[in-house]
Amino acid sequence: MQRWKLTLEFDGTPFVGWQRQAHGISVQEVLEQAICKFAGESAKTVTAGRTDAGVHARGLVVHTDISRPTDAQTVCNALNFYLKPHPVSVLLAEEVAPDFHARFWCKGRAYLYRISNRPAPMAIDRGRTWHVRRKLDATSMNEAAQFLLGNHDFTSFRAGGCQAKSPIRTLDKLSVTQEMDEIHIRAEARSFLHHQVRNIVGTLKLVGEGSWQPKKVREILEACDRKAAGPTAPPQGLYFLRAWY
Amino acid sequence: MQRWKLTLEFDGTPFVGWQRQAHGISVQEVLEQAICKFAGESAKTVTAGRTDAGVHARGLVVHTDISRPTDAQTVCNALNFYLKPHPVSVLLAEEVAPDFHARFWCKGRAYLYRISNRPAPMAIDRGRTWHVRRKLDATSMNEAAQFLLGNHDFTSFRAGGCQAKSPIRTLDKLSVTQEMDEIHIRAEARSFLHHQVRNIVGTLKLVGEGSWQPKKVREILEACDRKAAGPTAPPQGLYFLRAWY
Repeated sequence: MQRWKLTLEFDGTPFVGWQRQAHGISVQEVLEQAICKFAGESAKTVTAGRTDAGVHARGLVVHTDISRPTDAQTVCNALNFYLKPHPVSVLLAEEVAPDFHARFWCKGRAYLYRISNRPAPMAIDRGRTWHVRRKLDATSMNEAAQFLLGNHDFTSFRAGGCQAKSPIRTLDKLSVTQEMDEIHIRAEARSFLHHQVRNIVGTLKLVGEGSWQPKKVREILEACDRKAAGPTAPPQGLYFLRAWY
Repeated sequence: MQRWKLTLEFDGTPFVGWQRQAHGISVQEVLEQAICKFAGESAKTVTAGRTDAGVHARGLVVHTDISRPTDAQTVCNALNFYLKPHPVSVLLAEEVAPDFHARFWCKGRAYLYRISNRPAPMAIDRGRTWHVRRKLDATSMNEAAQFLLGNHDFTSFRAGGCQAKSPIRTLDKLSVTQEMDEIHIRAEARSFLHHQVRNIVGTLKLVGEGSWQPKKVREILEACDRKAAGPTAPPQGLYFLRAWY
């Protein structure tokens, strides 16, 4: 039995999210089916992040065990062969220690959120960004973002159904930059609360359009009340970029 | 009657190309239908470039005439409303002189060709780049590209069915750069022959993988023989970026 660390890219559009669910197709399901077809045995996978429906990944890490003796190149090619009908690709397969754990061993996670900020609707990037017509000011959004850096109680940015024991998290990076007609929000932390990035983005968007002053974000954080913050930004702008160990 | 200049973005995947055809849906058809629904009269459009099936646009210019008195914002919003089921978006609508011609007045066109150069297949960018597994050397590709700059007989890079009277064209820009795991080829000219960019890319790819030396591209150009050059690169990596007047 060998434990494998897999790095995945996927387009979240057709999926109900990472996790297996009764009512639709999940990334976990198509990946486990591919492993099963290759390995000839039922497969279980553990992920560094359970992405929501519509959320994409450029480098999500998962682990799985395969009894069949094989090598990294074969694992990569075989899984990509069986995954072909789905927009999921194994970027890298690496042999790891039998106790490696994609979730518990993870030392950091990075997300990117893309906002397309222009009047015209999206043609090429439909389903891949949040389309916001009203002009946003990336500078004031970035100013507001700085209040969230560091160790805080993030209750104001936490989904109702979040199962984490503590609302305390340490945000190591939160930057807002303008890239042509897109606004990119990059966030890094050891771990995130459920919807934390999307709730932060939904709040920063209100700062960007001028509805809120940057310093209001500090008050929102201190309120420790989900109702104090902005709405949850839609899933299709969010990308799980990478996990490190 | 007012002539309008429209700047379009579209995802070429579902289309048989720009031009109306009996066997499938074209960008021209869905755009003319949208204009017709808005203007209440049949519409004709003229394009700066007749893109092939699967080719994308980030800024293709077309012109059309509308009798109904209206303004630029209304044209943009209304057309985007009627285009909604299709991945086509009007980025800009501008009033122009009655003799403005999207094709004949065009002083320059810019294309981008994207190659994804990595072992793993594409998940997020499927249908949006040419996936080449074998490692390409962008530096030697760029070196080869310099032989094609300037005024030449491009017969070696011209499609068999090309209807242009002369195979002589002036290539003002042809650059090859590495952008993360992508290779970007940018080309600018007053006008291009049919398949000229894709045939150049198919040739530069053979240089990039080391099958051909950069200086062979000069011999290919001088041969004035389509069979001397490489194969036509697939359509899905090509983007019509912009046209200027």
